[in-house]
Amino acid sequence: MILVADNLTITNPVVARAVDTMDPGPIRNLVVQCEEAGVDAIDINPGPLSKNPKEKMIFLMDAVQSVTKLPLFLDTTNHEALSAGLEIRRNPVVINGFSLEPAKLERILPLAKEYDVDIIGYLLTSTGCVPAREDDLVQIALDLYRELKKAGLDDTRLIIDPVVAPLIWQNGTAHNRQVLSVIRILPELLGFPVRTIAGISNLTSGPGPAGKKRLAEQSFMAMLAAAGLTFGLLNILRPELISSARMCSRLLNSDVFSWAE
Amino acid sequence: MILVADNLTITNPVVARAVDTMDPGPIRNLVVQCEEAGVDAIDINPGPLSKNPKEKMIFLMDAVQSVTKLPLFLDTTNHEALSAGLEIRRNPVVINGFSLEPAKLERILPLAKEYDVDIIGYLLTSTGCVPAREDDLVQIALDLYRELKKAGLDDTRLIIDPVVAPLIWQNGTAHNRQVLSVIRILPELLGFPVRTIAGISNLTSGPGPAGKKRLAEQSFMAMLAAAGLTFGLLNILRPELISSARMCSRLLNSDVFSWAE
Repeated sequence: MILVADNLTITNPVVARAVDTMDPGPIRNLVVQCEEAGVDAIDINPGPLSKNPKEKMIFLMDAVQSVTKLPLFLDTTNHEALSAGLEIRRNPVVINGFSLEPAKLERILPLAKEYDVDIIGYLLTSTGCVPAREDDLVQIALDLYRELKKAGLDDTRLIIDPVVAPLIWQNGTAHNRQVLSVIRILPELLGFPVRTIAGISNLTSGPGPAGKKRLAEQSFMAMLAAAGLTFGLLNILRPELISSARMCSRLLNSDVFSWAE
Repeated sequence: MILVADNLTITNPVVARAVDTMDPGPIRNLVVQCEEAGVDAIDINPGPLSKNPKEKMIFLMDAVQSVTKLPLFLDTTNHEALSAGLEIRRNPVVINGFSLEPAKLERILPLAKEYDVDIIGYLLTSTGCVPAREDDLVQIALDLYRELKKAGLDDTRLIIDPVVAPLIWQNGTAHNRQVLSVIRILPELLGFPVRTIAGISNLTSGPGPAGKKRLAEQSFMAMLAAAGLTFGLLNILRPELISSARMCSRLLNSDVFSWAE
């Protein structure tokens, strides 16, 4: 499992303040912290960017790229901000992401072709909702793939996010079992080794006791990893979660196991 | 996942001493502790019982059954001890277990028919070894099933143990990935919802750092649970492992999730 930090998000007050005051220092510090914690890539989530979207994305990209060469996941629904970020990319970049919503198909998906980069497709309905049944998830994956090909992109550009639901949602646990199942069948369904990503922190969003949240995240992450998940989007500054993720990778990928690693 | 305590084993010095001196007190205490910790069944592992096998098994069964009504897994290769234990059973009992080794087929498997109880079949070769390839595991499962039917037992009597390997074995991680895969395919392979059991403690046997061992057990247990494992055989007196197991069950089985449970 490749670890993607979800820490650089506008919901983090440190990030919000830095973006507001255009102060690159706290952004750089956070990125350095994430890299030291052993992350493989960084998700940049500046929120909806209702004011000065281009300027803010350029500020973020500059701040991040000044301290790391890691791949960056540009996580915004604002296509102007996305274009601006893609334009000044020096690091490998992934667009995060598109869905069957018409605005995303029209304005986000073409950017992956224009800039020749990977793009994440969400298993959401054309109205942006989490679908109710596993059959729907499967059909949406096929539809996303068809749209990707229509846009002139290679298979290898696609990464699928089946969208982990918060456990406190009414059908959260049932939906998440479908997520495990769909991750497992996607490569055969699409006919190539499609990559997948899941947001581990989504599982426990909302109120709840910290100890049980940690257990839920660690347990579900192991299940996702065993299902074949490629990228885990998670809080890289939670050492016990990262240790769990590393252990999962060793159980699932290593040929020779050693406790010393 | 149904939790089976592996604590009542002759490798536990408290148990060894109690069996040696025929003192039921420590055995009863241990069983009460296990039941208070929330176990669903108890494995009784008296070792090879080279001396006075019947007498020792009767002593253990009496001590255990005097304080619990939980199902008991009789975990010995000594068929005389097994018979003696089965003869005085009051609790539900499972024979643990048989394999394709000729002595097991001749002397252990028939006891399941004679006493009309469930029996565990190990995915081991006819020489008692862990097989090298996944194809072998599959073939052995089919062979065990055929032997079970030949012995006149119902499908529903069978529980399969694919035998988790210690991670420090040369091919331990590779074998354990096959274990996950075979647990997943067994119900379709045999054509009925066959139950499965795995020894979680096996994974980390041998020397190694306690913290990493715990992570490995929790991670692999979640993978086993997601693969569909029925029974987890584990150290019930390890609260964090039990909390993980309960969380896995809730993620995989609950319709409505609540942090309060």
